[in-house]
Amino acid sequence: MKLKHLAAAGLALAIAAGALAQGKPEDEIRYRQSVMNVIGHAFGPMIAMAQGKIPYDKAVVAKNSNLIEALIGLPWPAFGPGTDKGAPTQASKKIWSEPAKFKHASDNVQQAVADLDKTAQGGDEKTVKVALGHLGKACKACHDDFRTKEFHRN
Amino acid sequence: MKLKHLAAAGLALAIAAGALAQGKPEDEIRYRQSVMNVIGHAFGPMIAMAQGKIPYDKAVVAKNSNLIEALIGLPWPAFGPGTDKGAPTQASKKIWSEPAKFKHASDNVQQAVADLDKTAQGGDEKTVKVALGHLGKACKACHDDFRTKEFHRN
Repeated sequence: MKLKHLAAAGLALAIAAGALAQGKPEDEIRYRQSVMNVIGHAFGPMIAMAQGKIPYDKAVVAKNSNLIEALIGLPWPAFGPGTDKGAPTQASKKIWSEPAKFKHASDNVQQAVADLDKTAQGGDEKTVKVALGHLGKACKACHDDFRTKEFHRN
Repeated sequence: MKLKHLAAAGLALAIAAGALAQGKPEDEIRYRQSVMNVIGHAFGPMIAMAQGKIPYDKAVVAKNSNLIEALIGLPWPAFGPGTDKGAPTQASKKIWSEPAKFKHASDNVQQAVADLDKTAQGGDEKTVKVALGHLGKACKACHDDFRTKEFHRN
């Protein structure tokens, strides 16, 4: 593929993905929601394992923890100034009015993910389930404080 | 965190993320769109580098290629039967009427991602840009054939 073709294809892809529109509130909102959605899907089976609803699968835990570790740093920069509205969002206004608290809560989540990923690569079932519990707690704490129950536009 | 609390928190998170609703068309559509959105954001800066719009950054290329490699296997199972509608989607009906062609196109994308990731971890700028070109071409080929220009509901 020649570079000029790559340029055209790349531009089309980038526009489609909103990659060149960084800073546009609706694109930032969509991006952070997308990341959270993918993280939630990766977390789902591990929660089901922790609950005993499906058998513990070390390979899935290792793979999904690794994926979450690769994703967990991505959403926070997308909560920039002016991205509190522009598309339906569950982001609480407190994200912007209490940034230190939000950073603390999101740091806790990232630390819990790092711990889970480290544990998942070698730990036994019991240790991993403890790490999953810590992560669940950190996620919930941040959601309780900084996510509204309903989507809002303003 | 006790297991019963984990269960409650986990269930809430999983429902929020649609993780337990696997098979519900709107959730599958949202999930595959989310994965594509995150992939697009990771691809964006590499396209800009290939175009010379921003300086080549080996660390970003290695990191983003690795992320795309972790994500690229995820969307395809979410194009299951009955997920051609249920929420606004750009998925062409051809995905379900020409499954072998769709599989071929998506296999090409996954191969191009694997090649890029392998190259990105050690390759020089020129080699990586060739791999980026191949991936851009594979993405575009699949989008041209299997993605509609506008969102549709039916």
